[in-house]
Amino acid sequence: MRFLNQNTIPMKKLYSIIALSTAVIAFSQKPLDKVEPAFWWKGMKNPELQILVYGKDIANNEIELSDGVQVKNIQKVENPNYIFVTVNTNEINVPKFKINIKNSKKNIGSYTYELKERMPNSANRESFTSKDVMYLIMPDRFANGDERNDSSPNLTEKANRNLPNGRHGGDLRGIINNLDYIQNLGATSVWLTPVNEDNEKVYSYHGYAQTDLYKIDGRYGTNEEYKELSQKLNKRNMMLVMDYVTNHWGISHWMIKDLPTKDWIHLFNDGENGFKRSNYKTTTQFDTNASEVDKKVALDGWFDTTMPDINQKNPLVLRYLTQNAIWWIEYAELGGFRVDTYPYNDKEAMAKWAKAITDEYPKFNIVGETWLNTAAYISAWQKGSKTGEAANYNSNLPSVMDFMLYGDMPKALKEKEGWDTGMNRIYNSLASDFLYPDINNVMVFFENHDTERWNEIFNDDPKAYKLGLTLISTVRGIPQIYYGSEVGMRGDKNKGGDADIRRDFPGGWKSDKQNAFQTSAQTPEQKEFYDFTQKLLNWRKGKEVIHSGKTKNFVPQNNVFVYFRYNEKESVMVVLNNNEKEETLDLKHFEESLNGFSKGKDVISDKEVSLQNSLTIPAKTSMIIELK
Amino acid sequence: MRFLNQNTIPMKKLYSIIALSTAVIAFSQKPLDKVEPAFWWKGMKNPELQILVYGKDIANNEIELSDGVQVKNIQKVENPNYIFVTVNTNEINVPKFKINIKNSKKNIGSYTYELKERMPNSANRESFTSKDVMYLIMPDRFANGDERNDSSPNLTEKANRNLPNGRHGGDLRGIINNLDYIQNLGATSVWLTPVNEDNEKVYSYHGYAQTDLYKIDGRYGTNEEYKELSQKLNKRNMMLVMDYVTNHWGISHWMIKDLPTKDWIHLFNDGENGFKRSNYKTTTQFDTNASEVDKKVALDGWFDTTMPDINQKNPLVLRYLTQNAIWWIEYAELGGFRVDTYPYNDKEAMAKWAKAITDEYPKFNIVGETWLNTAAYISAWQKGSKTGEAANYNSNLPSVMDFMLYGDMPKALKEKEGWDTGMNRIYNSLASDFLYPDINNVMVFFENHDTERWNEIFNDDPKAYKLGLTLISTVRGIPQIYYGSEVGMRGDKNKGGDADIRRDFPGGWKSDKQNAFQTSAQTPEQKEFYDFTQKLLNWRKGKEVIHSGKTKNFVPQNNVFVYFRYNEKESVMVVLNNNEKEETLDLKHFEESLNGFSKGKDVISDKEVSLQNSLTIPAKTSMIIELK
Repeated sequence: MRFLNQNTIPMKKLYSIIALSTAVIAFSQKPLDKVEPAFWWKGMKNPELQILVYGKDIANNEIELSDGVQVKNIQKVENPNYIFVTVNTNEINVPKFKINIKNSKKNIGSYTYELKERMPNSANRESFTSKDVMYLIMPDRFANGDERNDSSPNLTEKANRNLPNGRHGGDLRGIINNLDYIQNLGATSVWLTPVNEDNEKVYSYHGYAQTDLYKIDGRYGTNEEYKELSQKLNKRNMMLVMDYVTNHWGISHWMIKDLPTKDWIHLFNDGENGFKRSNYKTTTQFDTNASEVDKKVALDGWFDTTMPDINQKNPLVLRYLTQNAIWWIEYAELGGFRVDTYPYNDKEAMAKWAKAITDEYPKFNIVGETWLNTAAYISAWQKGSKTGEAANYNSNLPSVMDFMLYGDMPKALKEKEGWDTGMNRIYNSLASDFLYPDINNVMVFFENHDTERWNEIFNDDPKAYKLGLTLISTVRGIPQIYYGSEVGMRGDKNKGGDADIRRDFPGGWKSDKQNAFQTSAQTPEQKEFYDFTQKLLNWRKGKEVIHSGKTKNFVPQNNVFVYFRYNEKESVMVVLNNNEKEETLDLKHFEESLNGFSKGKDVISDKEVSLQNSLTIPAKTSMIIELK
Repeated sequence: MRFLNQNTIPMKKLYSIIALSTAVIAFSQKPLDKVEPAFWWKGMKNPELQILVYGKDIANNEIELSDGVQVKNIQKVENPNYIFVTVNTNEINVPKFKINIKNSKKNIGSYTYELKERMPNSANRESFTSKDVMYLIMPDRFANGDERNDSSPNLTEKANRNLPNGRHGGDLRGIINNLDYIQNLGATSVWLTPVNEDNEKVYSYHGYAQTDLYKIDGRYGTNEEYKELSQKLNKRNMMLVMDYVTNHWGISHWMIKDLPTKDWIHLFNDGENGFKRSNYKTTTQFDTNASEVDKKVALDGWFDTTMPDINQKNPLVLRYLTQNAIWWIEYAELGGFRVDTYPYNDKEAMAKWAKAITDEYPKFNIVGETWLNTAAYISAWQKGSKTGEAANYNSNLPSVMDFMLYGDMPKALKEKEGWDTGMNRIYNSLASDFLYPDINNVMVFFENHDTERWNEIFNDDPKAYKLGLTLISTVRGIPQIYYGSEVGMRGDKNKGGDADIRRDFPGGWKSDKQNAFQTSAQTPEQKEFYDFTQKLLNWRKGKEVIHSGKTKNFVPQNNVFVYFRYNEKESVMVVLNNNEKEETLDLKHFEESLNGFSKGKDVISDKEVSLQNSLTIPAKTSMIIELK
């Protein structure tokens, strides 16, 4: 999620709600309104479960569990509408038990709590790694598979495809219907921007102002459909990655409207109705000289007016976020998390959060949105990094996003060669890899749902697209691509705002005139983008040498960057010619990596390439050569 | 020393000398021509001393030491003109002994070797720290104190002040004569660019192509005068810092002309007569993916045509460099080293070199010329850094140069405010401080003898100078200033080359029309620069809070950067207004650091400043306020 969004709704007078909430106004009508998590599982590594029970003045009543289930702890808070009941699931020998609310020995509410059986091998599930390519989808803008759910009587904002910032009707069914397309393209994992309920009045399609953390937004589908999507991906040896948001919730979230504790979120005395905008200076997390006020505004300030900043330091909040995350993994059989605005959270709390999840699922991958400019700051967020250690920090976060390379790529392709420009910029960017403790577990990308579209920057030039895709698909790390760019989609954030970089995928709606999901129906322009992507990503699927091979980088010469990926079995030579003219390489320079090979096969053209003496590469072109 | 120097002499056909040397041509005429080090001291921590003995075919003779002194080891090499004799000084009980060269029992040469007494407290000497301000002088261009040594019959290049790249006649006596000026200015240590003999035919004044590592260049003076300068500085509680060059020697160095071993220097089979220019890509030192060829060319390639690259991996070379360094410290009573082109050396050898020196002199400071763009790469060179550790390296080097801040400063002052421009650029630069294990031991500067002059960049605007000097004098670290800028000297490297940024100090030559050394004779323009410098640096001398206080940085607002330096006793508020207009600060924002103080004293004007409510600061102005 990008800061300083120019296209958000102007600040509104919604804060009175929050102000009121601190005076404990009960929005719930019944003595037992909600139980979260709604159910749980037996046999988790951490047997302790904290159940939030919500209802009008519930704290003034007695709680009783049936079937001899012991309450380990009942925690009451300032707001009597909440109680937090802790049980030890290891000690519960029944599949179901009742939570009874009693007043003067009279049962005034009851909830049947279920402890389900876990899927076999659930704890040891696989997750996304550098073997994968991640396909990022903005669900509202991808495909409308079920027109019946475009609007919902329970949800405020109704579908209106004419509004750039409105709900367009894309949904989970639309994604399920197009899994062949995604799989054939060569992606192996799918990251959806948040699909939990976001019931803001307007501008809700992006989903980052969640109003229910346990419920898929009805306009995307149901919890069951979300699970269906995940299961269908798993059957294809693919996986679903959830966009998890720990930093903020929507201002219309039911708990925000009736805060359990005043410190559930960050409220500022000097801000209007408690609101203060973040200064977005997340370098304050590691800068030991940062002032307290700057750090506070960076971390506790709100990301936007409709997004109250969640206080992860509060142990109840942290527990809520942790259990919710685990609930979704277990329930929906997830293959990973992408975590929004990672550096804006309390970093000690997040280290506990990541640890709790990876303790339960040791192979589970979590990639943080580490939007920082330098490798030093990005790597500091990766588990076990020395840069983190320099600030006495260990995040426990397995994966981070290479925003440095992201920032350097378009500059490099646009500018002339110089000491640190052109391909030298890319080379320099990669020269910081030693700072990462697990460089293969770094996400590489040239765009996402918050950035200018690559094809906009390069005016839909397929050559620039191919250079970019070659780079992110063959360097170390986990390539992430963004829906639609594989058919040349463009979008100008600077002119059209976020809506423009989140245009509808052509063919995702019945009324669309052209359907790019059907490769036979693609325009010649779309096809050129698609074919290259399809060829490259499918080749990558089986290439261990790319997934986990070593790297050898050669200092660019004449704006041509050459690197090798290699392991004991294979070697791949990647050549990126960033010049407007053909270049010929003297191959003697690469002797140590060519290692006696005299020919290879170009992965895209399937043609044999001679590697004797010299190699000529056309202007603005990449070559990926498997050494033979 | 900066790479890619545009003003060096074109490559010449000097390499035949090197080619010949490997065929062992004896340049020495006598059976015992040179002994190095010429003398040594008793009571060093490391008692082992390796004496280089040089003479025609000396290795074919017998070596005998007098007075029962035991030879621990005699090492002969490919070139019979060298032998390396190791003794244990702890076991030598005489102040002097003879090295006798014998052929068929006949004495054909003899040298009296002396083991001197060390100065009291020599090992525990103080060195430069963040208490100091370092004044960098290019001796040929500062002051000509002794016209008799301007040229020397033994040295090829003669004085010619009309040549921008010629010898101008500045010397050690000129510096000695102006110590009052330097001390009054507020500097406490003096770094001279190399003053060892550099007997290149032309363009020798910079001294980086040394031809004798044990002898001061006759055009600067004598070894004794060098020691005199150091002692006179020490008497003033100041110190002399030697510019040590481990990476390369001059092509006319006597040992280069008659190489002891072929691998004393790096020769390239594919270079013309062994020469290959460095690619200057020193990121290859830590980049674990760097190709061998790039790393080799970076480290072993020559810095320039007249500067053969020294092979520190050769233990004899490393020993030579180590003993030579220690010899100068002990002989000339030095207060520190600045080491040229640090990242171009073999890094493992240099870690041993730095360790050997700091083992002998635990407080001795050594600052490496770590010309790299990012804090991650710069900090990796500092002893005990986590970034170095990420690449399994510990340099043992106490101090590094903050080239990141250097690069950011002029940009910041020139550009408009933006997310990462203007004062935000400075703030971001300092936000990486956590990467340094010893941030106080980092050199801060806005120019040196290899860069564009600050006053050129800012067209002699005293406001820009004051902003820059305020910053480097009040942030953490050791400020380094460059001769002449304190009287507004300018120089345009882009137009006039290195010579232009190394112009003669006005008044350093008898014939000069104006003498800026005499403050009474300074022009009003010179005086404005000088007075500010003098006031600020002298104030800094006693300010522990600046030397070693903590720092609190506030995110810039409206292009005004505010930071505090503080310790238990004192607090100083620094305000830098980078705007073209006056700005008023709401002081409430700085509450945590103002800490109840309601007034202060401006260091430059000595005026009392009210710190209630707000503070107004004029356009492009800095304020340094001691809280009262």
